[in-house]
Amino acid sequence: MLKSFSPLSYEQHEEAVVESDEDFGQIDAGQTDFQSLPDRVKHEKFIRDALEIILREAVFEGTSRKSHVVEWVEPKALPSIIDFPARSSGECHEDLLRHVAAVIRYSVKTGHPHFVNQLYSSVDPYGLVGQWLTDALNPSVYTYEVSPVFSLMEEAVLRDMRLILGWQDGDGDGIFCPGGSMANGYAINLARHRMFPAIKEKGLASVPKLVIFTSEDAHYSVKKLAAFLGIGSENVRAVEVDERGKMRVEELERALSEVEAEGAFPLMVSATAGTTVLGAFDPVRELAALCRRRGIWLHVDAAWGGGALLSRKQRPLLDGVELADSVTWNPHKLLAAPQQCSTLLTRHKGLLQSAHGSQATYLFQKDKFYDTSYDSGDKHVQCGRRADVLKFWLMWKAKGTEGLERHVDKLFELSKYFVGLIRHRLGWKLLLEPECTNVCFRYVPPSKRHLNDEELSKALHNMAPIIKSRMVKKGSMLITYQPLRGQPNFFRLVLQNSGLTEADMHFFVEEIERLSDDL
Amino acid sequence: MLKSFSPLSYEQHEEAVVESDEDFGQIDAGQTDFQSLPDRVKHEKFIRDALEIILREAVFEGTSRKSHVVEWVEPKALPSIIDFPARSSGECHEDLLRHVAAVIRYSVKTGHPHFVNQLYSSVDPYGLVGQWLTDALNPSVYTYEVSPVFSLMEEAVLRDMRLILGWQDGDGDGIFCPGGSMANGYAINLARHRMFPAIKEKGLASVPKLVIFTSEDAHYSVKKLAAFLGIGSENVRAVEVDERGKMRVEELERALSEVEAEGAFPLMVSATAGTTVLGAFDPVRELAALCRRRGIWLHVDAAWGGGALLSRKQRPLLDGVELADSVTWNPHKLLAAPQQCSTLLTRHKGLLQSAHGSQATYLFQKDKFYDTSYDSGDKHVQCGRRADVLKFWLMWKAKGTEGLERHVDKLFELSKYFVGLIRHRLGWKLLLEPECTNVCFRYVPPSKRHLNDEELSKALHNMAPIIKSRMVKKGSMLITYQPLRGQPNFFRLVLQNSGLTEADMHFFVEEIERLSDDL
Repeated sequence: MLKSFSPLSYEQHEEAVVESDEDFGQIDAGQTDFQSLPDRVKHEKFIRDALEIILREAVFEGTSRKSHVVEWVEPKALPSIIDFPARSSGECHEDLLRHVAAVIRYSVKTGHPHFVNQLYSSVDPYGLVGQWLTDALNPSVYTYEVSPVFSLMEEAVLRDMRLILGWQDGDGDGIFCPGGSMANGYAINLARHRMFPAIKEKGLASVPKLVIFTSEDAHYSVKKLAAFLGIGSENVRAVEVDERGKMRVEELERALSEVEAEGAFPLMVSATAGTTVLGAFDPVRELAALCRRRGIWLHVDAAWGGGALLSRKQRPLLDGVELADSVTWNPHKLLAAPQQCSTLLTRHKGLLQSAHGSQATYLFQKDKFYDTSYDSGDKHVQCGRRADVLKFWLMWKAKGTEGLERHVDKLFELSKYFVGLIRHRLGWKLLLEPECTNVCFRYVPPSKRHLNDEELSKALHNMAPIIKSRMVKKGSMLITYQPLRGQPNFFRLVLQNSGLTEADMHFFVEEIERLSDDL
Repeated sequence: MLKSFSPLSYEQHEEAVVESDEDFGQIDAGQTDFQSLPDRVKHEKFIRDALEIILREAVFEGTSRKSHVVEWVEPKALPSIIDFPARSSGECHEDLLRHVAAVIRYSVKTGHPHFVNQLYSSVDPYGLVGQWLTDALNPSVYTYEVSPVFSLMEEAVLRDMRLILGWQDGDGDGIFCPGGSMANGYAINLARHRMFPAIKEKGLASVPKLVIFTSEDAHYSVKKLAAFLGIGSENVRAVEVDERGKMRVEELERALSEVEAEGAFPLMVSATAGTTVLGAFDPVRELAALCRRRGIWLHVDAAWGGGALLSRKQRPLLDGVELADSVTWNPHKLLAAPQQCSTLLTRHKGLLQSAHGSQATYLFQKDKFYDTSYDSGDKHVQCGRRADVLKFWLMWKAKGTEGLERHVDKLFELSKYFVGLIRHRLGWKLLLEPECTNVCFRYVPPSKRHLNDEELSKALHNMAPIIKSRMVKKGSMLITYQPLRGQPNFFRLVLQNSGLTEADMHFFVEEIERLSDDL
């Protein structure tokens, strides 16, 4: 029988716990009372038993090259394996552990070396511990009062990141955001608040039509957030890119003039440092000069490519980033922090508070007994907010800036190694010389090598989902494919895991061939 | 010496690891390579050593009533204890463990039973394990392809929550959001998208001025997000509340007529079920009738009070919630899931996709080999997104719906018990009869009991930060104070931890007296 809390007294409550506890049968409804011995014993046993499963199945064996990246189950079949819906009664210790094991077994192992499907991957042991510690402390980073360590740690890490951007003395401001999309949304709001501060109170009715410029290969979040912010997705102009996927500055100039001629207001240029698919870097220095001349906010979406700043060799890819008004940079991408770890950095100190602050008197009391300038929560549109800083901070402490540099350099070297493998290999076609660790390619199996261009395009486009399906069902690797600007589907390797080896690059090449060669 | 990755071959790399490993000295820059024996040994040792510290200091002893809730350090002093800035070189095993211990020591123990400062608290052991498991798997919930289990789990939990709201067959839609503020922002965007779908592309320039109505005691996020969405904070009308903090329906009617007379468009009424400070519930059924009559979107911000729906006794507080168009409900508040766990639920199926979708071809490919209706990511404005579902799902499995009901009932009984303790106690003044588990009170120490009303107000207002300062420096408990609508500061007890006991309620009363009696 489940123990009943109310209306038991303190002593009765203790007894009830003892009574229901002996067989680790059904689970109590209560929370933390780790001082109550029976509760503590039961809860600690559950935590430790579950942790052993998590460590073994998810962290260590789950990321072994001997294990599958995924054990595929069709969406319609999974509910017969995991009992998803809520039930009236609580379950016992053993059944809960079975749930833990099943969740692991049927989840994609994003920490597996052969998961190269997205712009996040791998398990960093220091990042994982940082995340687990954060969860154990369960902070909300809005006031120094309830999160002293996390508040100062955020400021320190954001300042260190601004130093790396090249902003003098690390001056400026920044926030951790729930993802790069939101960071880009924040940038849009900062740009419009600096230019039209009345929008905050009066809304967009008070200003001319605002237009944002970004490349046709930019991340979709620029449009998505422009819509969310009431600017409208059509008022994001997609500027043409060159053959390497970089924004054409002359096309931007033309678009700017058009928009001005229409009487609309060019609010922001959002450059991309590391596009999602091709990994291209827009020419930030040129764009910065143009923006400065015209008084337009320059945002750099370096969510993906920002990590290259840690490498002296790769830093020139972001040449001119120090001239940006704001930068999105996600350490959970190229620097391989656990996701999510996203930041928005700006040169304009005070603007985040001015654009988003609302001085709620129940949270940001000004008569507190300490210096409330350390209460950073009002810079955000979120109120309660998870701490995404500690995992990255602990990684940085473990590796040092030098270690992060070696991590980045290793990734670029591996992607070059992969390119070297496929450049002249039979049937392989490299889409373009990579700038980042994205390598975009197509592989033409023997039976398709005689096709003309049009037939081949069609065949490659249709083959991609088949190859993907085979790889998922086999569980051998996970890599994504996509079309781009009307071109047929191609595959994209993305590297963020410096635990990868040259042998893994050989594996990727050979596995793609194995999965394709009979098509 | 730090081991260098490049340009070592696979074999050299293995050797280098062995070489630098023996003393657990400086840390490598690499990630997951748990198959490489020396890496695995080193990483596993770090993970296990750190976990022991976390379990002991943060989870068990840190939440003991014998421990302090906080070990206070001034913001200026903390950087001399924890070395926040990044350094060039990585640190050794022992130094990293020292960081872990220091982060715990100087963090507020939000899991401590005497942390009653915010609308989240406690450590639920099943919630914690769910969170840790999520971190180990590090999913991003946008496609079934990379997060099959989490994708289906989200849909199941959101459906179960809609069933509890009273929506037939659990129909409708929903998303997990990075906090209740964002959930309220989503609700605003849904309301305007349903009424003016062209805003998504064209922006707000294409429509009349939109106005949102919410009570003067509503959460500040309604204004904050209205500003972020380009509607403007002045276009959120604060409707007067009655003496219990509930929105006055007749005042809303008057405001609606005023706005219509001005030629603006009444877009949404945002009712609150459990206001942040007083815990008041707006009369949802009456508001729903009014909104239906006038064709206005009814949103219910039940971020805090939504948990009461789990209790048959308390459910009437939200009478009429099934008539809402959308509901914000944060299981991390009254149901005490680890934060952050926030949801936005809507009766309007398809609207989230229509309002936010952008069909990015690199992520939401329509030629995938499985049914892509399970790819839920395009309903969100976030792209990469943490999984906040598992921790709540595992708690729900552990306790069952019955266990969650007992949890909620216990909280309401405890708050009543606390009210009973202070109602007639010398020097105590209950601000109002609580509806939720918020109990708002003032305590007048002996020397102030002779003051007239005006003098007393001033004295109480000034005393609150002093009492707070004493409690923080002593570390005995954490409870918040705030002013409200020109009234002087008062304290607010908020209960979400069903591990609390009647003895704790006595402790809170006596501790407040101890901290105040010489003032």
